[in-house]
Amino acid sequence: QDKIELTTKVSKGSISFASEDGNFKFGFGGRVYMDAAAYFDDKTDLGSGSEFRDVRLLMKATLWKKWDAKINVGFADGAVALKDVFLQYNIDKNSLVRAGHFLEPFGIEQTESSKTTRFMHASSTVEAFRPGRNLGVSYEVWGKKYFYTIGLFGSDTNNKSAGDEGFSLNSRLAFAPINSNGNLLHFGVSGIYRTADPEFNSDGDKISKSIRYRSRAATHIERRRFIDAKVVGAENQVKLDFEMIAASGPFSLQSEFIDAKVNRNKGFEDYHSKGWYAQFGWLIKGGDYKYATKTARLAKPGPGSVELLARYNETDLNDSDAGILGGKQKDMTIGCTWYVNHNILMRFNLTNVDLDEYALNGEENFNMIQTRLQFAF
Amino acid sequence: QDKIELTTKVSKGSISFASEDGNFKFGFGGRVYMDAAAYFDDKTDLGSGSEFRDVRLLMKATLWKKWDAKINVGFADGAVALKDVFLQYNIDKNSLVRAGHFLEPFGIEQTESSKTTRFMHASSTVEAFRPGRNLGVSYEVWGKKYFYTIGLFGSDTNNKSAGDEGFSLNSRLAFAPINSNGNLLHFGVSGIYRTADPEFNSDGDKISKSIRYRSRAATHIERRRFIDAKVVGAENQVKLDFEMIAASGPFSLQSEFIDAKVNRNKGFEDYHSKGWYAQFGWLIKGGDYKYATKTARLAKPGPGSVELLARYNETDLNDSDAGILGGKQKDMTIGCTWYVNHNILMRFNLTNVDLDEYALNGEENFNMIQTRLQFAF
Amino acid sequence: QDKIELTTKVSKGSISFASEDGNFKFGFGGRVYMDAAAYFDDKTDLGSGSEFRDVRLLMKATLWKKWDAKINVGFADGAVALKDVFLQYNIDKNSLVRAGHFLEPFGIEQTESSKTTRFMHASSTVEAFRPGRNLGVSYEVWGKKYFYTIGLFGSDTNNKSAGDEGFSLNSRLAFAPINSNGNLLHFGVSGIYRTADPEFNSDGDKISKSIRYRSRAATHIERRRFIDAKVVGAENQVKLDFEMIAASGPFSLQSEFIDAKVNRNKGFEDYHSKGWYAQFGWLIKGGDYKYATKTARLAKPGPGSVELLARYNETDLNDSDAGILGGKQKDMTIGCTWYVNHNILMRFNLTNVDLDEYALNGEENFNMIQTRLQFAF
Repeated sequence: QDKIELTTKVSKGSISFASEDGNFKFGFGGRVYMDAAAYFDDKTDLGSGSEFRDVRLLMKATLWKKWDAKINVGFADGAVALKDVFLQYNIDKNSLVRAGHFLEPFGIEQTESSKTTRFMHASSTVEAFRPGRNLGVSYEVWGKKYFYTIGLFGSDTNNKSAGDEGFSLNSRLAFAPINSNGNLLHFGVSGIYRTADPEFNSDGDKISKSIRYRSRAATHIERRRFIDAKVVGAENQVKLDFEMIAASGPFSLQSEFIDAKVNRNKGFEDYHSKGWYAQFGWLIKGGDYKYATKTARLAKPGPGSVELLARYNETDLNDSDAGILGGKQKDMTIGCTWYVNHNILMRFNLTNVDLDEYALNGEENFNMIQTRLQFAF
Repeated sequence: QDKIELTTKVSKGSISFASEDGNFKFGFGGRVYMDAAAYFDDKTDLGSGSEFRDVRLLMKATLWKKWDAKINVGFADGAVALKDVFLQYNIDKNSLVRAGHFLEPFGIEQTESSKTTRFMHASSTVEAFRPGRNLGVSYEVWGKKYFYTIGLFGSDTNNKSAGDEGFSLNSRLAFAPINSNGNLLHFGVSGIYRTADPEFNSDGDKISKSIRYRSRAATHIERRRFIDAKVVGAENQVKLDFEMIAASGPFSLQSEFIDAKVNRNKGFEDYHSKGWYAQFGWLIKGGDYKYATKTARLAKPGPGSVELLARYNETDLNDSDAGILGGKQKDMTIGCTWYVNHNILMRFNLTNVDLDEYALNGEENFNMIQTRLQFAF
Repeated sequence: QDKIELTTKVSKGSISFASEDGNFKFGFGGRVYMDAAAYFDDKTDLGSGSEFRDVRLLMKATLWKKWDAKINVGFADGAVALKDVFLQYNIDKNSLVRAGHFLEPFGIEQTESSKTTRFMHASSTVEAFRPGRNLGVSYEVWGKKYFYTIGLFGSDTNNKSAGDEGFSLNSRLAFAPINSNGNLLHFGVSGIYRTADPEFNSDGDKISKSIRYRSRAATHIERRRFIDAKVVGAENQVKLDFEMIAASGPFSLQSEFIDAKVNRNKGFEDYHSKGWYAQFGWLIKGGDYKYATKTARLAKPGPGSVELLARYNETDLNDSDAGILGGKQKDMTIGCTWYVNHNILMRFNLTNVDLDEYALNGEENFNMIQTRLQFAF
């Protein structure tokens, strides 16, 4: 029992070392996204160029049958970014408890790996309102037609500021009333309650807390946030996400609507903002769309697939009642993805961005071409 | 001889790839500590919260039978922290030479992996006076009843400042007159001589060198150092550590006393400070305490063990003769550790901290609850 | 086809996991260079000491026969430094296309791994003019007697500044008219055209672009650059590198001459600078020098080899016509390298540096002793 031999295999382009009884399994790997973008400027002098969007090293293990451990560290921009770093206890085949640093449950795109999200950049609505990864615990349970998760999260992987850190409670519930014969219909709803983190001035005195929503223009090489709402006098925020997926054979439709409300101190009007996106996919090569029940979303298309894509997004950070005009963005993207094999894919995206008078540099409308070469093993 | 087949095994929850003759062995892995703390404030507004105390990726190898190489890199706080990074030549079964970045020999807790130290945080005495890891070389030799090491270290893994960097000479000698039938008695003494690093003002001119001793309040989520002595006009420091371990069956006692002296330039009085801790352990489940002869300290309890713990610590950084009043801290911790299996453990610590008038915010006394979920593979 | 068993082997001290048909191969490893230096000062107060010159973790894979993926991340100085991070498509046995972050083709020493460059520090000429690693694509083709590569590169792995980033076009062509019976004669020429990156002042307004050439004094522990030419009003640069290698049995000679020209805006004189080095090697143990056709340079000497080395370098950053006097450096190094085994080597270098009146602290002449312990697996 103390020394068990492992068998080394490659499956779908990833290496694993596993014991015959499945009690132990180890793996290592990495991922890299190489992006390039050309911008056609309106008012703002946009910075065309190239970058690593992501570079990661990963080690993971299944330990003593029931435990899964994962350490995934990012190095893009020459800085350390902790990604999934967690310990998971698999209660049975359909439920688990997880503790560590991972994506808070909230809708589809927020909880999906960037390896499989359909466009080069998350929709600006999801970018503006997503909670991202935080240190916390969650419970998940799922079946062929349902998925439920609930979580409790702190505010960060460290605790550098004085004062007690904020926390969040969240939950995602999804149903798939139709899931058979290449047809899929899926609905879901998520909710987050999160308290604001304490803030301090340079003398170390507590000041008014704030909550901020902002997003880039459906791109990352040009890094400026064109819409940006900083809500001072904040106590907490409540966010709701309504999600829908429909698929039939090689066609798919996915949409999310997010509503965010910041509850503020006395003397401040509460702040409301919202956004939504809808995206359409067509597998012109590679078969039909499939459903991933364990995560309640569309699975990654198989190797060799070619996918045509279109997305419309609208994000509105203006709330004149609250006196906060963060800007409104409408953007439209058409794209094509070639899933070369299990490890490699290439993306090509054309995007038009339309901004209102409250955006970074006022009203403007610009286009961009973006492309990605991605590998993971 | 040029291509040798390796066998993959898991032992005690860690993976290894080894040749039959033992000439080659490779491994990879990682570790994560997830901490949470709740503080009950006195004067200072302490920041309750959660954090990753440690996140690491490790690769290691045994090469050509005699050489051990290790690269262990930490990523907590979103920053790179080099941990054990060294090359070791194993002279025979009981002695080795090591070169690289590793813990300078000095007492028990300073040289022990945080995977096995008994409490969530090192004793404040060891934290204040420990030399930590530095770039250097050491020689080690050990037997069933003795351990001896001597080392020479530089001051850092890089050399960013102008001027020649400081260095240290150190040694640790330990005896275990009783080590049989579940009974253990161990004594040791360590000494360090270290020169101060050069310091420069913003114009690049050399200024008075300094040596600093400071420590946190037996916790890390709240990061402020409550006792802190900065000794200017420093030439070098001499530190002594006296250590003791006694164990009988499921009971253990461990204690260290550290004395630090800073020799200063003419016109300054030499600075003296000191501290000590004593800790008691009781394995209520999991058998007896064992001795690790290779490192001369208590071994990690086996999987399934449950350990009750208590520690008293006193650290005194006040030296009124030298005119430096860094503060005095007394703290008491009781704890419980569950060694779930070879990979996973959970800690629970209750601590009372008592600070004198020279501490960060003057005299105060506060309590805290801390907990850790730790995994390594 | 979906689950293929892999065989684990160690070859030349490195581990690999490969499928029998060669379609899949995985590996991991790392490298560490530990350096120490003692300087004998002239005018400048040089900082003797020790450092990690390099610490890296590596994961790599051959995927679906034709694709090679590599992720190599550096952690020296406690900071993330992306090294080779690329995806490569092997067209046939003698040609490939590569995309990612890697050394731009330009001469011998710029494109050679620091694991095998002969001295502890690159020649100051190569350091001053080398393009380093950038994000780009290249095509390579080679045979027993020729090597050709052409590339297109951006300016960095991220795109933090506003404005479109600069780019470069480069090429290296090498011939080995003699390559048999232990005799080698090799000639090569490389060229780079690179546009200057945009620069902005603190208000975000575009300012005059600049290109900078500078280098250390054949060492890295003392970090100051003693010669340094910052050319403002720059539009682009054109650099040429002429290379030569000759070897006969245990003797080798290698030399590069680099010429750099900065084309400047109207009203500025174009800037010229240049440098060259020649180095001599003698394998007093370990057989004859060999040629690596795939990279068109001398191969690493085999395990057990002992190599005596000498290098003369001259770098001239003064151009009085352009009004830029960056300083001139002449340096001479003698060295000895012991290739202990495939994984470990030790270097010992003695260097004399001679600087003219335009160098950092004016005319001076100093000596240094440097040593390295290096391991990689």
